[in-house]
Amino acid sequence: METPDIIYGKNSIIEALVANNREINKILISKNIHTDTKISKIKELAQERGIIFQFVAKEKFQPYAEFNHQGVIAQISPIKYMDLDEFLENKNYVNSSLVILDGVEDSHNLGAIIRTCVCAGVDGIIIPSRRNVQVNSTVEKISAGAINYIPIIKVNSLVNAVQKLKDNNWWIIATDASAKDNYYDVKYNDMNFAIIMGAEHAGVSKSLLKASDFIVKIPMQNSFNSLNVSNALSAIIFETLRQKLKNNK
Amino acid sequence: METPDIIYGKNSIIEALVANNREINKILISKNIHTDTKISKIKELAQERGIIFQFVAKEKFQPYAEFNHQGVIAQISPIKYMDLDEFLENKNYVNSSLVILDGVEDSHNLGAIIRTCVCAGVDGIIIPSRRNVQVNSTVEKISAGAINYIPIIKVNSLVNAVQKLKDNNWWIIATDASAKDNYYDVKYNDMNFAIIMGAEHAGVSKSLLKASDFIVKIPMQNSFNSLNVSNALSAIIFETLRQKLKNNK
Repeated sequence: METPDIIYGKNSIIEALVANNREINKILISKNIHTDTKISKIKELAQERGIIFQFVAKEKFQPYAEFNHQGVIAQISPIKYMDLDEFLENKNYVNSSLVILDGVEDSHNLGAIIRTCVCAGVDGIIIPSRRNVQVNSTVEKISAGAINYIPIIKVNSLVNAVQKLKDNNWWIIATDASAKDNYYDVKYNDMNFAIIMGAEHAGVSKSLLKASDFIVKIPMQNSFNSLNVSNALSAIIFETLRQKLKNNK
Repeated sequence: METPDIIYGKNSIIEALVANNREINKILISKNIHTDTKISKIKELAQERGIIFQFVAKEKFQPYAEFNHQGVIAQISPIKYMDLDEFLENKNYVNSSLVILDGVEDSHNLGAIIRTCVCAGVDGIIIPSRRNVQVNSTVEKISAGAINYIPIIKVNSLVNAVQKLKDNNWWIIATDASAKDNYYDVKYNDMNFAIIMGAEHAGVSKSLLKASDFIVKIPMQNSFNSLNVSNALSAIIFETLRQKLKNNK
């Protein structure tokens, strides 16, 4: 195994064990924590999969003091980023969706976005290899294990990625506070689409706005108009799902 | 002034100065930070309002090391919680909305919920005085100042609060993963309504579900079905807004 990542927290580790698509080297459980149903589940799943778990003194957790580890950590193979060609060749996409993140810098936001995308059935998340937070331990923890259920596609250039998507008949929808159309005015059915979310302050970059087929906004009801990026995405992505489930009504 | 609260971070302090509805005792700015446009704005607004600001050695920030203070903190009067009677008598509500939080324990979530509610034009947020996170410095920071734009109504009993709302012709909508109806099946126009969001694990308590007029769910597209509470609320609250702006279409 390459240098393993550390994931921490009961739910993250249960989800990684359930998903069972990454190599888990070892699970460390603090001797000082109470064995609740979640710890029992971790032990049970680890045994089923032949994964070592050890009860260790709490001092072993000292290097991870900054994390809310709940007395359990796992050494796990790093998540495998997918590349865009691999994603596109993976299956025949119909009414599928992608989320593209252009400069999201906060680990909490990326974790929440991953969770939201999995719940809403999004097919993948594209992040650039620079100027965007990467998947780290905090992202894994906040995603509550959702990271194991969705491809994270890392690309060197978002502009090139968007062009490739367009060449493959995906429609590109960017979000921008000054857009004329509201996000719910687009009909999301009967197409594959990718939604671009920008950095909290800078928004979606001009080159990507230019390359987009639609630019939409969320109508704000207050002079205070700064919506968190994961909450903005949630509003939009569940509207696309509503349309799908209600057939564009 | 009572014992002041501390708020921290450039945006939080700018928003508190702009909203100008809480007494700010003093603003402390670290001598070691670069004076950018936001710091200039803080100085300018403080001067306009006759509020003292001091440039201090970074050691003064030592007690706040756990916070992401960006080199600026303000001593501010605690937020004034509203009581429900005061809220109800405040104006004649038409097509208004409330959010009721039943057991939300995470400061990040409460901060994100406040931001979302302000952006979506929600009229107030009800929290119980126990078993729910209260408004603390982290909540203020994560809310990015939105806390100054919406009444936070604190009640001793959510059950009594819900009954009082019903007596005042508000409709009560609870969220529950096992509901039959989807959240977008309710027609939110032409009524005042309150949406109850539950704790991430326990959900909305049984006594509140029983008192509700509608129980709705967000349709999940994956076996991993744990949506963050602020993202769940965002999906629902912007659907209510979509209906209002589109006249129930």
